[in-house]
Amino acid sequence: MVATFTVSYGVRHVRRHVFDIEETTLAEMVGGREVFVVADERVWQEYGTNIERYARGHLRLSGSARVSGQEHDKTLERVGDLCAAAFDHGLSRDGVFVGVGGGVTLDMAGFAAAIYRRGVRYLRIPTTLVGLIDVSVGIKQGINFHGKKSALGAFYPPMGSINDATFVSTLSRRHLSCGFAEILKVALVCDAALFELLEAAGRELYDSHLSSPVAAAEEVLFRAEAAMMRELEGNLFENDRRRLVDFGHTFSPLIEVASEYTIPHGEAVALDMLVSTALGAERGLCGWGVFGRLVECCRSFDLPMRYPLLLPTLLERALDDAKAHRGGDMNLVVPDGIGSGTFAQDVTGAELRAALRVVDAAAGR
Amino acid sequence: MVATFTVSYGVRHVRRHVFDIEETTLAEMVGGREVFVVADERVWQEYGTNIERYARGHLRLSGSARVSGQEHDKTLERVGDLCAAAFDHGLSRDGVFVGVGGGVTLDMAGFAAAIYRRGVRYLRIPTTLVGLIDVSVGIKQGINFHGKKSALGAFYPPMGSINDATFVSTLSRRHLSCGFAEILKVALVCDAALFELLEAAGRELYDSHLSSPVAAAEEVLFRAEAAMMRELEGNLFENDRRRLVDFGHTFSPLIEVASEYTIPHGEAVALDMLVSTALGAERGLCGWGVFGRLVECCRSFDLPMRYPLLLPTLLERALDDAKAHRGGDMNLVVPDGIGSGTFAQDVTGAELRAALRVVDAAAGR
Repeated sequence: MVATFTVSYGVRHVRRHVFDIEETTLAEMVGGREVFVVADERVWQEYGTNIERYARGHLRLSGSARVSGQEHDKTLERVGDLCAAAFDHGLSRDGVFVGVGGGVTLDMAGFAAAIYRRGVRYLRIPTTLVGLIDVSVGIKQGINFHGKKSALGAFYPPMGSINDATFVSTLSRRHLSCGFAEILKVALVCDAALFELLEAAGRELYDSHLSSPVAAAEEVLFRAEAAMMRELEGNLFENDRRRLVDFGHTFSPLIEVASEYTIPHGEAVALDMLVSTALGAERGLCGWGVFGRLVECCRSFDLPMRYPLLLPTLLERALDDAKAHRGGDMNLVVPDGIGSGTFAQDVTGAELRAALRVVDAAAGR
Repeated sequence: MVATFTVSYGVRHVRRHVFDIEETTLAEMVGGREVFVVADERVWQEYGTNIERYARGHLRLSGSARVSGQEHDKTLERVGDLCAAAFDHGLSRDGVFVGVGGGVTLDMAGFAAAIYRRGVRYLRIPTTLVGLIDVSVGIKQGINFHGKKSALGAFYPPMGSINDATFVSTLSRRHLSCGFAEILKVALVCDAALFELLEAAGRELYDSHLSSPVAAAEEVLFRAEAAMMRELEGNLFENDRRRLVDFGHTFSPLIEVASEYTIPHGEAVALDMLVSTALGAERGLCGWGVFGRLVECCRSFDLPMRYPLLLPTLLERALDDAKAHRGGDMNLVVPDGIGSGTFAQDVTGAELRAALRVVDAAAGR
């Protein structure tokens, strides 16, 4: 049996608020189909009235559900609850799950869409910085399970994403900081100009919730999204297990689990990048200057450089897990300069301990 | 973002028992990858020793899990248990879930494979007649949820299936009878020659566990599988909601749920076919002779023609559900002759009651 098919989706950018009654992008994309909205509590509190008014004006709303948006609720049970709610509202097989929220919410809504009636359409509206530049580009939906981060899930392409940067203005500083961690990730291993832009304007962008300098804000969002797209395109289903965008994502899952998801994803990614870059410098894959510049960036975005659970045994376990997930190779991503990266194999416990000492020293300065 | 990819899988037929140590098809298909076996209790009792010996000789066995193979265990929780067991055994992303069992077991193993680490390879070894001629051809994995049959799941293509007809010899008569119901399904709406073969040799095939007449047994298996393949190919992901192979699958899900899964799938399918065909004859879409011939076939395979829960209200609800699942149309499949079918819309309660009276009268003869 042979069948060929095409995955096609894109990111639409809106200038007005996506739920502004004059803004018809969402209505056009769902095209008269029934809609089931999954939004996180924070978003609902802030935009629920707008969403309801928009739905009355533009959508065939089947129903809606709210989720905490917290990592510890990203479970099979809670995704089941979303599906049960959609059945209770009678959402048909031609309906659309619309996820509105941060990465956690979008993962849950996307996985629910992937399994509801064996898969229905899914549309994403990210409301965090991570969502805008990272989640909105990919096709991975995942939930935490059995003590593992994103252990279950699906590669399930959405209809598309609607990116509305106005959401950034109401983000907490901590959410914003986590978004910058993901931007740093793609900048350091894929886009030198973006990294330099973050060095030059990052702090001001952070302090102003990306409202100033205006040109830099637009460029950062554009470059981060474009770099992610370049990296994912051609390897959407991860047949190639060497992925530069895994930078910062080798140790971080276990840090998150060990913290019982009290440390936000972006902060764990920052810690991971610091350790990985120190390791790279130890190996001579990149200069110590690269590590130093990353440290300064983390500092400017208030990203943590220390964490009590950042221990050699945990990191060793993370490398074992990575091997099981990356075709038997560690494929630890390390920068080999600003804007490019490579893959390290066979990292030893001694190397990990040395890297941790360096990170610790840098944090202590 | 655009990506094109190809789904390709097939059914391999083995002449020796698939777990015979001389039979290397399974070993060749998994190609040295780690294997996690999901088998149902009945199969394990009968073939567990063979499977273990085969694994020692030919496979890198990561671990195995057993399931009841009962419809009421086809739940999200039990699929979670399978994934947890695979994690406990350290099955990597390059591992293979091998499902060994009937339709329920294959659905569970397939759905676990679809979501484990966002999807790993899946290989099917059907051990029932339904499994051989129906499950082994498609790509649908599903579980029961929230009072609905196969409410959650995935379209998830396997690496392939290994069909070993020797399993049929140890099936219970009831399992066998259910298998013939699915063969009748595809015969009546897709393959007149197959239907005539069932009329001529069906009872002997049933009584002999498909061992005699030998030529007829081979032809029945071949034709049933081929007809399923023709119907599925080109519509694997069900973009076209008019599917002849949905014959017998409109009322049956609700009959199964109402019975709390005490009525086996094949028997529910038989009841559904009888009602649908009576409806077709009432509408003049097929002659009453077609209904009469179906009744005789059901009788020869000991398929039930009465069931206390077969009530008009239940059937009406089933038609509503079908509409939600088939793009707003009922698409009730009815034969319009022997070997071909058509789709009925807007079936009324009065028609359903009339059809039920006819089925009841036929059962009473």
